[in-house]
Amino acid sequence: MENMTVTYEEALASALSFVHIQGVHEVLLPDAVGEILARDVLADRNIPPFRRAAMDGFAVVWTGEEPERTYRVAGTVNPGVEWRGDVTGADCIKIMTGAMVPAPFDTVIQVEHAHTEHTGHVRFGTSARRGQNIAAEGEDVLKGAVLMPTGTLLSPHHLTTLASVGRWKVPVFKRPSIAILATGGELVEPWESASGPMIRNGNAHFLLAALKELGYREVRYLGVVPDDREAMMAKIREGITFDFLLVSGGVSMGDVDIVPDCLEACGVRKILHRIAVKPGKPIFAGESPGGSVVIGLPGNPVAVIVHFYMFIRPLLLKASGTTEYLPKPILLPLAEEAVNRSGRKKFSIGRLEREGGDSRVVEIPSHGSGDFVSTSRAEGVFEIPLGATRLPAGEIVRFYPIWGNFLSQEW
Amino acid sequence: MENMTVTYEEALASALSFVHIQGVHEVLLPDAVGEILARDVLADRNIPPFRRAAMDGFAVVWTGEEPERTYRVAGTVNPGVEWRGDVTGADCIKIMTGAMVPAPFDTVIQVEHAHTEHTGHVRFGTSARRGQNIAAEGEDVLKGAVLMPTGTLLSPHHLTTLASVGRWKVPVFKRPSIAILATGGELVEPWESASGPMIRNGNAHFLLAALKELGYREVRYLGVVPDDREAMMAKIREGITFDFLLVSGGVSMGDVDIVPDCLEACGVRKILHRIAVKPGKPIFAGESPGGSVVIGLPGNPVAVIVHFYMFIRPLLLKASGTTEYLPKPILLPLAEEAVNRSGRKKFSIGRLEREGGDSRVVEIPSHGSGDFVSTSRAEGVFEIPLGATRLPAGEIVRFYPIWGNFLSQEW
Repeated sequence: MENMTVTYEEALASALSFVHIQGVHEVLLPDAVGEILARDVLADRNIPPFRRAAMDGFAVVWTGEEPERTYRVAGTVNPGVEWRGDVTGADCIKIMTGAMVPAPFDTVIQVEHAHTEHTGHVRFGTSARRGQNIAAEGEDVLKGAVLMPTGTLLSPHHLTTLASVGRWKVPVFKRPSIAILATGGELVEPWESASGPMIRNGNAHFLLAALKELGYREVRYLGVVPDDREAMMAKIREGITFDFLLVSGGVSMGDVDIVPDCLEACGVRKILHRIAVKPGKPIFAGESPGGSVVIGLPGNPVAVIVHFYMFIRPLLLKASGTTEYLPKPILLPLAEEAVNRSGRKKFSIGRLEREGGDSRVVEIPSHGSGDFVSTSRAEGVFEIPLGATRLPAGEIVRFYPIWGNFLSQEW
Repeated sequence: MENMTVTYEEALASALSFVHIQGVHEVLLPDAVGEILARDVLADRNIPPFRRAAMDGFAVVWTGEEPERTYRVAGTVNPGVEWRGDVTGADCIKIMTGAMVPAPFDTVIQVEHAHTEHTGHVRFGTSARRGQNIAAEGEDVLKGAVLMPTGTLLSPHHLTTLASVGRWKVPVFKRPSIAILATGGELVEPWESASGPMIRNGNAHFLLAALKELGYREVRYLGVVPDDREAMMAKIREGITFDFLLVSGGVSMGDVDIVPDCLEACGVRKILHRIAVKPGKPIFAGESPGGSVVIGLPGNPVAVIVHFYMFIRPLLLKASGTTEYLPKPILLPLAEEAVNRSGRKKFSIGRLEREGGDSRVVEIPSHGSGDFVSTSRAEGVFEIPLGATRLPAGEIVRFYPIWGNFLSQEW
């Protein structure tokens, strides 16, 4: 039972059930991007908070006979000014976009339609609709309404709303702390020279960068540990003092794949060890006695890149308090036939290309899960379901835009 | 001529022509995400650098008669080890994934197919294909090949490649410095209370956060300047000591829209001032005597959010050295009819929803370009072309996924 192969969806659901939200703290608005709201954000006023001029022009009391008469211009109202002059129905006031429209005016006629009759008097070359060019108080949102719910992952555009309702201090969930451990006797670090059977450690530096980009700051790199039980267990004991321990390499079935045994010897209880997915069949998930979540990925760089986004990020996001933590696919047609000889669900790397009037998913040729160079032009991954051995050109697939900046050299 | 309205594409092309790349400097690998490569990255070795075992198993000299004989196991080769034992054709060696396959062996048979005959001898329960389970030296890339060209915007997955070829110091283009100025007598800061005709300044804090997310570090916030020529000109003179000056508000036609005049008085030459686009008709672009690029956006929050990505980001990316700086659309069908009464190109805010077997673009209802709250669920914008007044449901539109994290609560 415990060595059973499970589907990707079962594996992720199972691992997610071991993930818990941390506490709450406050950050200042300029540091809030990438954080997750820990309290609903409410409107502190109606939005707009007053009847706001939506155009530069003249505010009048609507009669329906605007083009047939001359108005005295009783004053000018700029944004930020509360106007308190005396007016009659024969008057209008000049008003600027964003200014508060004073009573009794109810309609704004754009400045382009106004003609100066004689000094201080205007005539309008157009009829008007009552209420035009005025944003009603509260028409977007009423005071007290929820603007953004708890669990919202904050992007820059959310800061317009936070700033507008005066949330300079923003309550967000604490982020989990994360340790990273690279395993493998063949690994040297990128600042070292590599020759013969040695290769450089790309996985740990990818993971560090990916965590930094997502805004995780409490991250400790434990270095490369050789295939030695004592050294490995010492690193694991250090790693499980963090909320998450991410291990690359050493989780397969070979003689040097001692990570699962060492984890067990450190008290880490296995949740799963095999997933019917390619790349990445051996993915280990476990829980330490102290409640740390331990994820072991194979050493293949493409598996690490793909499953950071398809497996680890959902766990981190849930632990960070988001309500939406699963990758969301875009359904798009395949440009060419895609094959899957693995007998598992396959995540193939791809990018989007325009073809006629469609955006199509183009599979990027790869020599396998060691071929990290093939990922450099990727914009995401697409899914070939478990059981499908080939999908024809034109078939609709789930494309996950996990890496795409979606930039182009041409229109 | 100079007050002519131009199309969005013409405006962007025109402004882009005033943008110049800065110099080159080096950053360390952990700081490289978001930076732009200033030199091609070459393979320092063949990739893989040696014949690499792709599976755990036994390396043999292929004869085509593998199932019919017994092999002596002459040793074990772990990753990182160069094996130099003496062997005969009757021998095999145990080998682990990622290890260097020693001569004369040319084929790896997976461990699952090996049965121990007697101590130190195995038999294989399967036939073999010559060369199977071995990644050939250089099969991904040959030494000296360009792995990533100058101009590549670095994402975390590019760091796997940089680390693997030993680029601990990464040559990248210098980023431009940027000043931000908010204008409007109605504005107070988010940490201040707002009542009556006053509203809080969301635009500047959005711009600061958006620049920070893109990794721009030399950013100065010049604060809110009231609608006063002397104060405005002092701020502009400070702002044009930066490579870019971004101004929100005050660029329209009203009495308080003194930004263009003040810019001119500071020597800033106008490139354009009107674009046939909604939101954002009045967008100012100019160049200072010292070569700074000045962009003035209207004060409407939605216009600022949309055009930071659709107009300003391309300029910043080009100045930062990317070869791909234009937003790349995904072509997708509309969920519902969309209308455009503006007579201009319209960027409507939207998100993607699954409908049957398609991903469709859902327009997010909005009360106009002041309705910033409507953007909080947005994943991007889609385009209604100049000249189109309505697009029916199902019509293919250009969707720009500029804000989307593309996350979901469900599968």
